[in-house]
Amino acid sequence: MDTSEKILTCRAAIAWAKNSPLSIEEVQVEPPKAGEVRIKLMSSGICGSDDHVLKGEFQMNFPLIPGHEGAGIVESIGDGVCSVKPGDKVLTLIIPQCRECSSCLHPKGNFCEKQDVLPCHGSMLDGTCRFTCKGEKIYHSFLVSTFTEYTVVPEIAVVKIDDAAPMDKVCLISCGVPTGYGAAVNSAKVTPGSTCVVFGLGGVGSAIVLGCKASGASRIIGVDINEEKFPRAKALGVTDCLNPQNFKKPIQEVVMEMTGIGVDFAFEAIGNPDAMISAWDSCHKSYGVCLIVGVAPLKSKLSLEATMIISGRTMKGVCLGDYKTRDCIPQIVTDYLQNKINIDPLITHQLPFDQLHEALKLYHAGKAIRCVLLF
Amino acid sequence: MDTSEKILTCRAAIAWAKNSPLSIEEVQVEPPKAGEVRIKLMSSGICGSDDHVLKGEFQMNFPLIPGHEGAGIVESIGDGVCSVKPGDKVLTLIIPQCRECSSCLHPKGNFCEKQDVLPCHGSMLDGTCRFTCKGEKIYHSFLVSTFTEYTVVPEIAVVKIDDAAPMDKVCLISCGVPTGYGAAVNSAKVTPGSTCVVFGLGGVGSAIVLGCKASGASRIIGVDINEEKFPRAKALGVTDCLNPQNFKKPIQEVVMEMTGIGVDFAFEAIGNPDAMISAWDSCHKSYGVCLIVGVAPLKSKLSLEATMIISGRTMKGVCLGDYKTRDCIPQIVTDYLQNKINIDPLITHQLPFDQLHEALKLYHAGKAIRCVLLF
Repeated sequence: MDTSEKILTCRAAIAWAKNSPLSIEEVQVEPPKAGEVRIKLMSSGICGSDDHVLKGEFQMNFPLIPGHEGAGIVESIGDGVCSVKPGDKVLTLIIPQCRECSSCLHPKGNFCEKQDVLPCHGSMLDGTCRFTCKGEKIYHSFLVSTFTEYTVVPEIAVVKIDDAAPMDKVCLISCGVPTGYGAAVNSAKVTPGSTCVVFGLGGVGSAIVLGCKASGASRIIGVDINEEKFPRAKALGVTDCLNPQNFKKPIQEVVMEMTGIGVDFAFEAIGNPDAMISAWDSCHKSYGVCLIVGVAPLKSKLSLEATMIISGRTMKGVCLGDYKTRDCIPQIVTDYLQNKINIDPLITHQLPFDQLHEALKLYHAGKAIRCVLLF
Repeated sequence: MDTSEKILTCRAAIAWAKNSPLSIEEVQVEPPKAGEVRIKLMSSGICGSDDHVLKGEFQMNFPLIPGHEGAGIVESIGDGVCSVKPGDKVLTLIIPQCRECSSCLHPKGNFCEKQDVLPCHGSMLDGTCRFTCKGEKIYHSFLVSTFTEYTVVPEIAVVKIDDAAPMDKVCLISCGVPTGYGAAVNSAKVTPGSTCVVFGLGGVGSAIVLGCKASGASRIIGVDINEEKFPRAKALGVTDCLNPQNFKKPIQEVVMEMTGIGVDFAFEAIGNPDAMISAWDSCHKSYGVCLIVGVAPLKSKLSLEATMIISGRTMKGVCLGDYKTRDCIPQIVTDYLQNKINIDPLITHQLPFDQLHEALKLYHAGKAIRCVLLF
């Protein structure tokens, strides 16, 4: 049956307000307008940014459907869409690639001006929404809500991937894997024999560890306040695990003592300004590079000791591993299929969509690196 | 007459306390100990960092002899010195290169652990001083006091230069030129056609402008509160001059409006945390690179809006243009002799040493890019 021009009814998780439990509801999903794509989701990861959304740490409109790390199959396309067609396996992209803005046109830019993260509007590009529930308009998150059986996204926020991709896993390559792995191999260009420290050992932090390891780092220090994450982190390549709560002194001093001179590369994958300062101050004063991968809460400040900046350190923000998303993400899927990168250890749990609350519990307890929701 | 093992008596400028006028005195200069070099100075620049020293913005011991941007001729060497010999033309190095520490051994490091800038001790490497005046110990500044007819420096803080170097000019290649020019061509690697903004149009800022221009930047915005500097800045290559005091809105908003999207490269050459934030916020949000070249006062803070770091910007501190000083600075002198870089426009004034106070007046009034003291 051709569903392409019809409103579809399906199940989706709605956050009716910030800090309120998600509720799985029946929603109506409009057909895609010109330049848009409707996707039948197969899987979605649960990422730290989704948790930030639910806590109201982004300035977003509620009610909304969260989720952004999605893998699915194109159900229908709007006028003018030419990069994907119905039946294609695709990933959703929290950072789109319009190929027209100043970021997309610059060789080193990837923070597309069409993104809907900072700031968030919660709509499609034309300012309207495609979801309704009980007659009420439901907002999108980041252009790509994925805690739903069907979603609509702009063509610039979706990319076709290899037909052989296992759809119960590759959703991680939509966001968490390139964000972390790319921060290490593409942004920092971690060097063989180097010393790294990773603050936060969740999904993104674990992907950073994979990237450091793949780049030949000889020492990878992992920092987290949840020691349950340590055995898995060590299995991925972390050589030393530190819980800051076990030390009276600031953790950067511990890292400095452990290394003698500071690290070559420090990664912050939490979104916590204090951890960002710890990462910065863990770096070698002359050549250390600090990569900020976590998103800090709105209006928070990062207060650095100004004088010592001159000694040579670098701080760089990294969004989606500095990858131009539509250009680069399909290759990561292919690399996974060709065993050049192994994301399987990051997927510690898979649960059906209706066990969303169980999945969120695993996330909050730090018991999962990534729990994938299956539709 | 062989003076090599004798105490020399000569004239030097002494700061007896912070914020007190410099006083030209007769001082005794001990012979160099093992690993040290005594230099007869021919010229010295007056750099912003010297002014910071006099104002007590570094934690330094007084009385001291300031100055660090020196050109001279080796008078004598201590035991074990092998990289220079009496009669060699040399430059003093505020950032030494010991070739043994973690910074020197790393391909990208240059902030030698033996430097005496952050923190300052004011002595030679063995903790003792080589200057006395009226029986009182006089401290060194940055290992390389140069407001004196003779100085003693460690071998690691001096480098031989081309015999043909004009000694009344090349003192600028000791610090100001590589600091600014190197920040643009070596650290930032300014790209052809790019847009740059330079905060502070003094000696270092002007050298940054030279570097941006040499790299093919198509637009160079210069920012300073002293409009007397604007005609000279334009002659060097600045395309747009801005005085922040002429605008009610923050100057970064003006830069953002002028460029539409922000600059590719922003340079801070003042050492003012507010200007550092303006430079950072003038950058393109995705690919902009902010180079911190000025030294901020001790204990000052640089407070960045944390959330937006993730969009991709880079901040990097740059000391001495990221050059390994003994390895790289002689080549800049040679490049000058071969007309590959022209430092002459930076030397707006030359005055005999005993007109030091007049030279400082020119500096404070912003009437000189660099005033060179001649001995």
